[in-house]
Amino acid sequence: MLRLRRNFHLSRHPLLFKPFSTAAPLPPLHLPLSHPTYILWGSNTSVGKTLVSAGLASSFLHSDSPSNFLYLKPIQTGFPSDSDSRFVFHKLSSLYRRRHARLSLLASDHVLNASLPVLNSITGCGDGSELAMCELGQYEEQRLVGEESGLGSRLICKTMYAWKEAVSPHLAAERESGVVDDALVIQSLQSCLNSGLGVNGESEGAETRAMCLVETAGGVASPGPSGSLQCDLYRSFRLPCLLVGDGRLGGISGTISAYETLKLRGYDVAAIIFADNGLENEVVLSSHLRDRVPILVLPPIPADITDDLMDWFDNSQNVFDSLKEIMLSAYSKRLNRLREMPKKAKSIFWWPFTQHKLVADEAVTVIDSRCGENFTVFKDQGDEFMTQQFDACASWWTQGPDAALQTELASDMGYAAARFGHVMFPENVYEPALECAELLLAGVGKGWASRVYFSDNGSTAIEIALKMAFRKFSIDHGIHDAQECNADAQRSELMVLALNGSYHGDTLGAMEAQAPSCYTGFLQQPWYTGRGIFLDPPTVYMHGGKWYLSLPVGLQPETLRLENAFFDSRDEVFDEKRDGSDLAEIYSAYLSQQLSNSSKSNSLLGALIMEPVIQGAGGMHMVDPLFQRVLVKECQDKKIPVIFDEVFTGFWRLGTETAAELLHCVPDIACFAKLMTGGIIPLSATLASNSVFESFIGDSKLEALLHGHSYSAHALGCTAAAKSIKWFKNSQTNLNINAEGTSLRELWDENLVYEISSHPAVKRVVALGTLFALELQADGSNAGYASLYARSLLLKLREDGIYTRPLGNVIYLMCGPCTKPDSCSQLLIKLLGGLDDFISESRENLESYHS
Amino acid sequence: MLRLRRNFHLSRHPLLFKPFSTAAPLPPLHLPLSHPTYILWGSNTSVGKTLVSAGLASSFLHSDSPSNFLYLKPIQTGFPSDSDSRFVFHKLSSLYRRRHARLSLLASDHVLNASLPVLNSITGCGDGSELAMCELGQYEEQRLVGEESGLGSRLICKTMYAWKEAVSPHLAAERESGVVDDALVIQSLQSCLNSGLGVNGESEGAETRAMCLVETAGGVASPGPSGSLQCDLYRSFRLPCLLVGDGRLGGISGTISAYETLKLRGYDVAAIIFADNGLENEVVLSSHLRDRVPILVLPPIPADITDDLMDWFDNSQNVFDSLKEIMLSAYSKRLNRLREMPKKAKSIFWWPFTQHKLVADEAVTVIDSRCGENFTVFKDQGDEFMTQQFDACASWWTQGPDAALQTELASDMGYAAARFGHVMFPENVYEPALECAELLLAGVGKGWASRVYFSDNGSTAIEIALKMAFRKFSIDHGIHDAQECNADAQRSELMVLALNGSYHGDTLGAMEAQAPSCYTGFLQQPWYTGRGIFLDPPTVYMHGGKWYLSLPVGLQPETLRLENAFFDSRDEVFDEKRDGSDLAEIYSAYLSQQLSNSSKSNSLLGALIMEPVIQGAGGMHMVDPLFQRVLVKECQDKKIPVIFDEVFTGFWRLGTETAAELLHCVPDIACFAKLMTGGIIPLSATLASNSVFESFIGDSKLEALLHGHSYSAHALGCTAAAKSIKWFKNSQTNLNINAEGTSLRELWDENLVYEISSHPAVKRVVALGTLFALELQADGSNAGYASLYARSLLLKLREDGIYTRPLGNVIYLMCGPCTKPDSCSQLLIKLLGGLDDFISESRENLESYHS
Repeated sequence: MLRLRRNFHLSRHPLLFKPFSTAAPLPPLHLPLSHPTYILWGSNTSVGKTLVSAGLASSFLHSDSPSNFLYLKPIQTGFPSDSDSRFVFHKLSSLYRRRHARLSLLASDHVLNASLPVLNSITGCGDGSELAMCELGQYEEQRLVGEESGLGSRLICKTMYAWKEAVSPHLAAERESGVVDDALVIQSLQSCLNSGLGVNGESEGAETRAMCLVETAGGVASPGPSGSLQCDLYRSFRLPCLLVGDGRLGGISGTISAYETLKLRGYDVAAIIFADNGLENEVVLSSHLRDRVPILVLPPIPADITDDLMDWFDNSQNVFDSLKEIMLSAYSKRLNRLREMPKKAKSIFWWPFTQHKLVADEAVTVIDSRCGENFTVFKDQGDEFMTQQFDACASWWTQGPDAALQTELASDMGYAAARFGHVMFPENVYEPALECAELLLAGVGKGWASRVYFSDNGSTAIEIALKMAFRKFSIDHGIHDAQECNADAQRSELMVLALNGSYHGDTLGAMEAQAPSCYTGFLQQPWYTGRGIFLDPPTVYMHGGKWYLSLPVGLQPETLRLENAFFDSRDEVFDEKRDGSDLAEIYSAYLSQQLSNSSKSNSLLGALIMEPVIQGAGGMHMVDPLFQRVLVKECQDKKIPVIFDEVFTGFWRLGTETAAELLHCVPDIACFAKLMTGGIIPLSATLASNSVFESFIGDSKLEALLHGHSYSAHALGCTAAAKSIKWFKNSQTNLNINAEGTSLRELWDENLVYEISSHPAVKRVVALGTLFALELQADGSNAGYASLYARSLLLKLREDGIYTRPLGNVIYLMCGPCTKPDSCSQLLIKLLGGLDDFISESRENLESYHS
Repeated sequence: MLRLRRNFHLSRHPLLFKPFSTAAPLPPLHLPLSHPTYILWGSNTSVGKTLVSAGLASSFLHSDSPSNFLYLKPIQTGFPSDSDSRFVFHKLSSLYRRRHARLSLLASDHVLNASLPVLNSITGCGDGSELAMCELGQYEEQRLVGEESGLGSRLICKTMYAWKEAVSPHLAAERESGVVDDALVIQSLQSCLNSGLGVNGESEGAETRAMCLVETAGGVASPGPSGSLQCDLYRSFRLPCLLVGDGRLGGISGTISAYETLKLRGYDVAAIIFADNGLENEVVLSSHLRDRVPILVLPPIPADITDDLMDWFDNSQNVFDSLKEIMLSAYSKRLNRLREMPKKAKSIFWWPFTQHKLVADEAVTVIDSRCGENFTVFKDQGDEFMTQQFDACASWWTQGPDAALQTELASDMGYAAARFGHVMFPENVYEPALECAELLLAGVGKGWASRVYFSDNGSTAIEIALKMAFRKFSIDHGIHDAQECNADAQRSELMVLALNGSYHGDTLGAMEAQAPSCYTGFLQQPWYTGRGIFLDPPTVYMHGGKWYLSLPVGLQPETLRLENAFFDSRDEVFDEKRDGSDLAEIYSAYLSQQLSNSSKSNSLLGALIMEPVIQGAGGMHMVDPLFQRVLVKECQDKKIPVIFDEVFTGFWRLGTETAAELLHCVPDIACFAKLMTGGIIPLSATLASNSVFESFIGDSKLEALLHGHSYSAHALGCTAAAKSIKWFKNSQTNLNINAEGTSLRELWDENLVYEISSHPAVKRVVALGTLFALELQADGSNAGYASLYARSLLLKLREDGIYTRPLGNVIYLMCGPCTKPDSCSQLLIKLLGGLDDFISESRENLESYHS
C-alpha cells in the first residue's frame, strides 16, 4: 500500500529534516464484490432484526450446492445474556437439523472482543483497574452432518464487540470504560468482511455461493460505541441495505422515517421486511414508496417467549426465500450496471476538456459514491471490489465538506427543496437568499461590498462583474450619457487590463477578458478577440525550500539587487513591508508606464480583472502579491474599477476566507463561486461596492442591470452556501481554523513540502492553504496543458488511492478547508513515492539524478 | 375573493359559450400570525403528545393576564373512549382548580364530526346504510372561577374528525366508511385556526394573549384518513413544529428519524421534548443536532395507569414553562425576521432585471415557502398573516413539480448530496449522470442525438452549442485544417442565422447570437456586436377565437391569398400538410434568397439558431411553425448546423416533451435547461448528433471541446433531472399526460381562452401546453419591455392569489406539466376579472369599449 520515502532525501538534508506526523494510515477501503454483502437495519429496536438474519441465513444455506453465509454483529450489548450471533448460530443449527439438509454444515459463533465487565462475568476474574476492550476470542462450532458427505456449507457468525449492559452501545461503552472509536470499528468490520468467509484457512471453492449480512444494533440512528449514529458510522461502506420495518400501530411512521434516514445518508434499500400485526401497514408503505422498494410481510411473531420459533421459521420460509432472491437479483443488477458503466459513459457522454479518442475504457473511473473527501470507486482487476481514492482534485476545485458537513448539507438540501423548491428572485426575498447575502457581506465582502448579485457559476459571475465595471467606468469617465435602447452609434471600445496566464471562465465574455491561450484559438472559439491589455506578471515559487521570485522580461532592470530574488519564507513574500522596497517602486514605475501607453490607443481600459495571488487554470502560478497590490493601487488611482476573480481562490482555498486578505487590499467588484456552497451545488455571487451599484440606479428599467438567470439565488444553492460559509469559519465545526475564524492552520507538512520541492523531478512547488501544486521538470511537448507527460505518475497515484488529474505537467493536490493535516501528510508521502518511481522510469532523468 | 366574469362576454357569444369546469375553488390559505400557532408531532405513537399539550396549555393559561389557548385535534381514532381533546380539557380543569388560579377560566371541548359508528355508539341509534362522516357537535364546557372575577381566560379544545376504532386513521376511516379527503381536512383546519379563538362571538381583547396548538395523530409519518402521510397532509400550512421525542431504549433513533422526516418536508422544529427514562437520550440528541434545537426532558411518566398525573404535571411545570418561553421567543423571532425582510432585501440584494429605484418596500414579496405550484407569502395588511399565491411565473419558467413531486425531489436531493455530494465529471461516470444522459437520449434527443454535454444553465448550453456548430461547419466547409494553438491568422468571420425577437441568454456568446435589443445596448454590454443575420419571422396569434398569421414586411407579396391569413384552430397551424401550401413556397423562396444574399458578404453563416415555436423572453411570440420547418430544411441542405434552443420550450412547456415535435423536424444540436430538473436546481445539457461529436475527435487534446464548468453533470442536478424526466412523462405520476406519454392534455379551458382573446383589453393570446400569454392593447411607451402599463393588473392578480411578473405589456400564466386543469381555469377566471377591472380603470379604453 504505502511506500515509504527513499532515504536519500533524509541524508541529503540532515539538519532540516524533522520527523513528520506519522499517524498510522488506515488501510484503504477494500470491499469485495465477489458475493452479496448487505447491512441489516431496524426501524426501531425489538422489531425482529435477528429473526430476519436467521431466516435469511437458513434460506440461503438450504441449498443443493455448498454455500457460505457470514453473519456479522459489529456491536452487541447485553452480552452474554443477549447474543444475536449465538442466536443465529443456534437457530440455524436447529433449523438445519429439522429440515434434513442434503449437505453438511459447519456452523460457528465467534465473539472477538468484549468489555472488561463481560470478561469478568464470563471468566469470573479480571483486573478491575484496566480500561478499554479485551480480546475475548470465545468460539464454538458445530458440525451438522447432512444426507451427503463431502463438501459442505458453512455458517460463520461473529460478534465483533460486546458490552455487558443492555443499553445503547454508547452508554454501555462509557459505563464499562470500553469505548471503541469509529475508525477501529470500521477497520475491524472491513477486516471481517474481507477475511470472514476465508476463515480456518479453507479456500473458497469457485462454485461456492456466498453471502454476507451485517446486523446493526437498535434503530438506524442508534448510536454506536463512540456516540456516532450507526447510519453515519458505517456510511463509508455504503453497503446495500435491508430494513426491518415495524408492523405495529405507529409502525408505518417509524418505518418511513427510518427509510428516509437511510436515504438521507445515501444508502440504497433493497427491501423492507416486517412481521404482520394485522394492520396492513404494507399497503400504505407500498403506496408511499411507489412500489420502488419490495415490501415483504412475515407471519406474526409468537408472543410467547418460550416458543422455539421453529414453526414460525417454517411458516416464514417462503418470505425469506423471496427476500433472498430479491437480494441476489439486486446484487447482480448492481454489479452488471457497474461493469457496463465505463463503456456506456464513453458512448454517450461528451466530457468537457477531454479528447475522447485518448480515453481508454479502463481509464474511466466509476464513482459509486463519495464520503467526505474520498471517492468510493469500483475496480475490476480480476476480482471486483470497491476502494477509496482521496479526491485530490477537490472535485475540480469546488469541494469542501468532510463527512460531517456532507451529512449536514444532505439534510439541508432535502429541507431547502421541500421548503422552497425554487422560487424566483427578482423583487422577492426568502430566507436562504437573505441569509447567504448577509453572510457574504459580513465575510468576503466585509469593509467594501454593499450588494450581492447572484448567478450560476464563475463564468457568469465574471460576465456580470465586467458589465458592472464598464458601467461604473463609463459614468465616472463621462463616456456616455444615458443612452437610448439600441443606440450603438457612440460606442467606445472598452478593454480590460489583465495578466497573462489568467483564466476567468469559458463563456465568451469571460474569455474576452483573458489572454490568448489554447482555449481561445479559432478551433475553440472563433469569436474570441481578446479585449485586453495583458501584462506578464512576476511570479513566486518554492524550490529546494526557498521561495524564488521570477521576473518577466520587461521587468528585469539591472538595478534590481540580488537579495530581492528570493525569500526565506512564504510569510516574507506576503509581508506588507515590501511596499517600501525598491521592487515596489520598480513595479509602480512599470505599471504607470503600461497604463499610460495603453491610454494612447483608441481603446479605454474600463476594468482591471485578476485572480488574486494564485492563477489556477493557468497552471497554479503564484503571482507576486506585491505586484498585484501595486497594480490595484495604480488602477484605483485612475478610477479604473478593480475586479477580483476569487472563484478559485475564495473561501479558504488559500488559507484565508478571501485571497484579497493576503494581498491587503480590496476590490470594487469580486466574484465567488465553487467552494462558496461547500462545493456541492453550483451558485455564484458577484459582490459590488455601493458606488458600483449606484451607477445602475435611474428612472428607467433600461438603466438596470439586465442580466439574469432563472435560478438566480436559488434556494438550494443559497442554503448550501449559508451552511458552508458558517461551517468553515467556525472553530467548533472546522478544527483547522483558528479561534478567531480568520485563517487555516498549515495543512501541508513543512518538511514534506521541502522534500518535494527538492526532488529532482520537480521544477517548482506552491503550497498555500488547501493547495499543493508542483510542476514537473519537462521540456518541449512534455510541458504545457496538452502534455501527457505526467500520465504514469497519475496512474500510480490513483493505484495508491489518490484521484488526481493534471494540468499538463502541473500536478496538484487539493484538500478541503476541514481536511485533517494527517490526511494531507499521507498524500504528500504517497506523492513523494510516486515521484521517485516516476524518475526511475525515465532513464535520462535518472542519469542526471545519479550524477 | 373570486370575482365572477362579467356577463357581457357570455351574452356576446352565446353559441360558443360552454360552461367551464367550475370545481369550487378552495378558499386561499390564510394563516393568522397574530399569535403563535404550533403543530405537535410525535416521534412514535404513545410517546406522550397529549401530556405535552396539556402541560403546555396549563403553563400558558397559568398567567396573570387573560389568555386564550386553542387546542386542536384534527384526527382522533378510538373515539369516544380515547379523546385527546377531552383529556386536555379535563386535565386542565383539574390543574386549574388545584393551582388556585387568579383568573377565571372558561374551558370547553367540542367534537365536530364523527364517523357513523361513533355516532351509533354515542346515540345508540343511526342508519347503518349511510356512508361518510356526520356532524357530531358534541360540546361540553366548564367555567372555573378564579380568585378574581372579571375578564377570564379561555381553553378551547376541539376534535375535528373522530373515528371509533383505535387503529391508524386511514384504516379506521376505511373500515367505518368515513374517509375524509385531504382538501377537506385542510379546509376545516384552516377554518378552526382562523375562527377557533373567536368562538362564541366574544371578541378577543387586544391585551389577550393567545396560543394555538395542533396535535397530530400517531407518528410524524402516520397516515391521515385518506392514507396521505400527516407530514405531507399538513405541509401547506408549514406550521412551526414541536416534536415529542422518545426517551426509551431505541428512542434516540426514532427521535432523530422523526426529526429528519419533518426537515425533509421543509418544517422547522422549535423544540424537542420527551419524558426521561434514565437513558440520557438528550446527550446524544443535543450533540447530533449541534445544539440548534432546544431539547427538554420531562420527569418519567408514572407507569401506573390509575395515576391522575397531578403530581407529574406539578413536577413538570418548569419544563413546560421553558417550552412555552421557547415557543413565544421563536414566534417573535420569526415574525420580526419576516417584518424586516423586505427592507433588508432592498438594502443588500442586487436583483437581476430590476430597477431598484422603482421597487417600493411593499412591492417586495416575502416568500416563506412553496408547496407544489404555490408560494406561501407573508402579508402585513394591518393584520399579519400567511397566504398563498399561485406561482404563475413558474419561478421564471423553470418550475414543474406538484406537491408530490416536490416531496420526491426533496428526498432525492438529500440522497444525492449524501451519496455523492459533487464528483467531477471528465473521464468519470456515476449513476445520476449516466441515467440522466440515457434518459435525455431516449427522450428529447431520440432519433438524432448521440451525445450529451452537460453545463450549468441555458446560456452556457448555448455557448457550447455555438462552439460545436462552428467546428462542425468549419470542418464540413474546409475552412481550416487542424490549427495550432493560438494561430489566429486564418480566422474567418463566422456568423449565425437567427430570428429577430430571439433570446438565448445573457452571457456574451449567447447575446452575440441574438438580434439587437434593449438587452444589448452599450449601457448593458459594450462588447455586443450582434454576429448574425437576423430575419423577421412570421408569427401566429389568437384573437377573438381565431388564429391569425402575421407576416413581416419583407414577406408580404401580393400573391398571398387571404385565406392563408388565419386558421380555424391551433391544430391547423401545426398541420404538416401546410408543407404543400403556397405559403411554404413563398417561405422557401424568401429564405433561399436571404441565404444567398448573406453568402455574398465576407462572413459565413456557421449556424442556424432558434427557439422552436415560441420566442419566450422576446414577448411570448409564436413563430409560424411552417416557416421554421422550411428554414431548418434550407439550412440543413446547405450543411449549416441547426441549433434548437429548447431551454424555454423543452420538457412539456409547450405540451410535448420538445417543441421540435411540434415542428416535425430535428436539429443537429439542441439545448435544454430550466424544466429539465423539474425546475428546482440549475443544470443544462447540450445534445449533439454523432457527426457533430466526430468533428472534435483527433489525436490532440487541443482538438477536444475545451469548455467546461466545475459542476458539469453535478450529481444533484442529474438526480433531479432523472426523476423529473421520468415523472413528467409517466401517466401514473402525471395525470395530465396521455397513456403513451407523448402529450399533455389541454390545460387551458377552451372557452375561457376564447373569452380572453375577445376581451377589449387584449391584443393577442397564445395558449399552448403550460403557457398562456396575452399582450395588452397598448401604444407608445405603454408597449415594450420597459413598460409599467400592466402594473395595476398585476397588483390586482397578486391580491387575488396569483403571482405574476410581466414582460412589459405581455402578461403570462405558466403552470407545471402536472398542474390540474381546474387550477388553470381558476387562474383564467381571475385573469378575466382582472382584465375587466383593468379596462374600467382606463377611461380612454373604456370609451372605445362602450362604443
